[in-house]
Amino acid sequence: MEASEFKDFAKAMIDYAADYLENIRDRRVLPTVEPGYLRPLIPDGPPSTPEKWQDVLNDVERVIMPGVTHWHSPRFHAYFPTANSYPAIVADILSGAIACIGFTWIASPACTELEVVMLDWLGKMLDLPPEFLACSGGKGGGVIQGTASEATLVCLLGAKARTVAKMKKEKPDMSESDVISKLVAYCSVQSHSSVERAGLLGGVKMRSLQTNDKNEVEGSTLEEAIKKDIEAGLIPFYVVATLGTTSSCTFDRLDEMGPVCNKYDIWLHVDAAYAGSAFICPEFRYLMKGVERAESFNFNPHKWMLVNFDCSALWLKNPNWVVNAFNVDPVYLKHDHQGAAPDYRHWQIPLGRRFRALKIWFVLRLFGVENLQKHIRKQVSLAHHFESLVNTDSRFEITEKVVLGVVCFRLKGSNEINEALLKKINGRGLIHMVPSKIRDVYFLRFVICSKYTEEEDVNLSWNEIKASTDEVLSLNGSVTNGVNGIH
Amino acid sequence: MEASEFKDFAKAMIDYAADYLENIRDRRVLPTVEPGYLRPLIPDGPPSTPEKWQDVLNDVERVIMPGVTHWHSPRFHAYFPTANSYPAIVADILSGAIACIGFTWIASPACTELEVVMLDWLGKMLDLPPEFLACSGGKGGGVIQGTASEATLVCLLGAKARTVAKMKKEKPDMSESDVISKLVAYCSVQSHSSVERAGLLGGVKMRSLQTNDKNEVEGSTLEEAIKKDIEAGLIPFYVVATLGTTSSCTFDRLDEMGPVCNKYDIWLHVDAAYAGSAFICPEFRYLMKGVERAESFNFNPHKWMLVNFDCSALWLKNPNWVVNAFNVDPVYLKHDHQGAAPDYRHWQIPLGRRFRALKIWFVLRLFGVENLQKHIRKQVSLAHHFESLVNTDSRFEITEKVVLGVVCFRLKGSNEINEALLKKINGRGLIHMVPSKIRDVYFLRFVICSKYTEEEDVNLSWNEIKASTDEVLSLNGSVTNGVNGIH
Repeated sequence: MEASEFKDFAKAMIDYAADYLENIRDRRVLPTVEPGYLRPLIPDGPPSTPEKWQDVLNDVERVIMPGVTHWHSPRFHAYFPTANSYPAIVADILSGAIACIGFTWIASPACTELEVVMLDWLGKMLDLPPEFLACSGGKGGGVIQGTASEATLVCLLGAKARTVAKMKKEKPDMSESDVISKLVAYCSVQSHSSVERAGLLGGVKMRSLQTNDKNEVEGSTLEEAIKKDIEAGLIPFYVVATLGTTSSCTFDRLDEMGPVCNKYDIWLHVDAAYAGSAFICPEFRYLMKGVERAESFNFNPHKWMLVNFDCSALWLKNPNWVVNAFNVDPVYLKHDHQGAAPDYRHWQIPLGRRFRALKIWFVLRLFGVENLQKHIRKQVSLAHHFESLVNTDSRFEITEKVVLGVVCFRLKGSNEINEALLKKINGRGLIHMVPSKIRDVYFLRFVICSKYTEEEDVNLSWNEIKASTDEVLSLNGSVTNGVNGIH
Repeated sequence: MEASEFKDFAKAMIDYAADYLENIRDRRVLPTVEPGYLRPLIPDGPPSTPEKWQDVLNDVERVIMPGVTHWHSPRFHAYFPTANSYPAIVADILSGAIACIGFTWIASPACTELEVVMLDWLGKMLDLPPEFLACSGGKGGGVIQGTASEATLVCLLGAKARTVAKMKKEKPDMSESDVISKLVAYCSVQSHSSVERAGLLGGVKMRSLQTNDKNEVEGSTLEEAIKKDIEAGLIPFYVVATLGTTSSCTFDRLDEMGPVCNKYDIWLHVDAAYAGSAFICPEFRYLMKGVERAESFNFNPHKWMLVNFDCSALWLKNPNWVVNAFNVDPVYLKHDHQGAAPDYRHWQIPLGRRFRALKIWFVLRLFGVENLQKHIRKQVSLAHHFESLVNTDSRFEITEKVVLGVVCFRLKGSNEINEALLKKINGRGLIHMVPSKIRDVYFLRFVICSKYTEEEDVNLSWNEIKASTDEVLSLNGSVTNGVNGIH
């Protein structure tokens, strides 16, 4: 493909992309395809000779769009938001053209240096303690990870290395595998599945702590578990506190967990994947009270801060434990400036890395902090608007305090009737939600996801939920009368 | 940013990107900046209100480009190639607009299904055994990983899970941590640093096998090591064979290693990160002879097949070991079609994933297989052209057989004089190379990286090397006469 053809093709795709996003409301949010739908739509193998780009572009509507779940539709209320913005898309064009692999400083100094500074910018926007920021001149600093899962795992591995080193000093007769077999990490029973997975991947025990009636982990629960494990001869080494759980967007008692971790010399990692973006608004920072006692802090600008996936921001007070845990240094990756700037390959699991800091730079400059704050505040207020709509209908109950953009609610009654309701809603396909379950109580999560969402969209979604409810309750009533319910 | 402004900005960036790539020869391949260069060029923090996109675009030349190492310059001969093509950049625009997170099938069926079929297309292009392909109807199938490092780690963790399960059956009295402490994996002393790192991350012993005088691992070396370890009570479980090492692009004796692994029931993983792309040309497939005995095979279309980073293709004959090793299944990720199509989140370390199959689809259709083969063949022939130039100069020696696009060579003489030569070359900044070292012999790697490279570029690079050599040798000579050499 020649440059001139690229320009035509790319510009046609830009128009297509803008058209797709500006008219996304018109598409059914959930596709109706069945597994295996795509294979028959395209040939068995690649062509020998080039096709026309116009044919490829046309196939996007024919082959791809019928199978797309439209995450940026204002009718999409599932999972958590994922970011998408025009400045980020443009930044990625530049990243794709430069296409450097920034594994060391010399491999493209701009790639490393913009990342260092952007993580400082972001950290200042969140008002993170200075020990986390490179600009404070200490050891601390930030790095872009692919996902929060990787951040949790990277810090777990750093904590593991730190504790193994400590135990080697304290108990030189213990073998490394002996130490590892005794390591125990802690998270909330409500932590994201990736935390449990980090334990599996890292080959260490991960203990799920029970929460209080507000679904928060308390400091006393953590301390009790730690004491019990120490008594049993185990070695507590890593704690993950979640700010904004996936199930119900609740917040662990970071202010209580920090002192406990400090007391027992345990690495405290803060997973604020979704909620972290809200901390650019001062009024939400009370939710991260106590963050100064953590070793590492992570949130995903690629969730709620309009920076396209993948962009998960991780700060470490002392990156050396992570760097040393991963440090393998062949001749072909050595360079003259080692030590003067971070070689980010040591801060992550993959070796290669794209120029992702460009996305942050473009988004921050082209929105400005005030507009990003407006974005967060608007989405939170839309969630409260939905909450107030639910409260007008006595068939429903809100199951969790609404703090940010997530509303947890359910039909008063059995889990089964709520499962039936969700199935009905998703089956109709106008809006999309996913459920969750806490203490065996099944509920629906309504999340404000799209940056295009307006009050009338929320009203429409609510009307759709009410209509589905009417259908399910009338069906359920009639079936109950007949064959003992749909349960 | 409104849609109309996005279109203007994005189209200006498209023009900038094309202009950058078409004129990349005019830029100094290595930047001259020092660590810390970037911070003073931009403000201390983000702006409160939006800036103009024109200012952001202008800052690309002012702030970013002075610190970019131009990986796509025909003067760039370092590391391995990294892919960059116009069709892939356009596909990424679409991926950025759709911006779905394809962790489950329902989260965007097109994202999963195009990936399944594209991995079949790719596998057919390489003539992989059908057991690796989803279209063969067995268990096997492919997945896109971020990097080869992750593929190596994912398979190591799958192999670990498989062996732990096996040992639980065979020796139920052994504890899991006992098993894990006895696990041992094998790779070549020439394997990529990420293989050693996978061992560190996975918490298992990784043994580096010595190579023969052609730098290949032989089957007998592997078997000897396995036997010795079994005698010592250890449990061999995972072997990585490298096809195309980073140091010198040599190929382990896969045909000999496969039968050994099968005999001892050990998971054999093939890392063909760079070389794999060449297997789309039948004449290079002799290099993967014996692949049918492997459990998993990996190569990076993002290296040599014009699909932009990140796109590392991994095939597994039986993905269940990996899937089960990582499987954590919360309510909010369950869906009605589980089992009917892969939920790729179980095949990888992160949870989230972009719509990366689009890049493969666009590249394969808009180049066609024949042009991709031409691309590989041309780059190999340019490497041989460089080899022939080196052979005209008796000051140099070729240190490794040239098979693909990598030429290993050195000045006859000490390591120090070769180090001085490379420093001189990179210091002049017209071309860029990195060194390697095998058995304490330091040499230079000349890699054909850019798709823009033509014979005259190689000639220019060779002339630059000769000129640098003249300088270094004359300096060395004069200094040697004075103060006993620069050594």
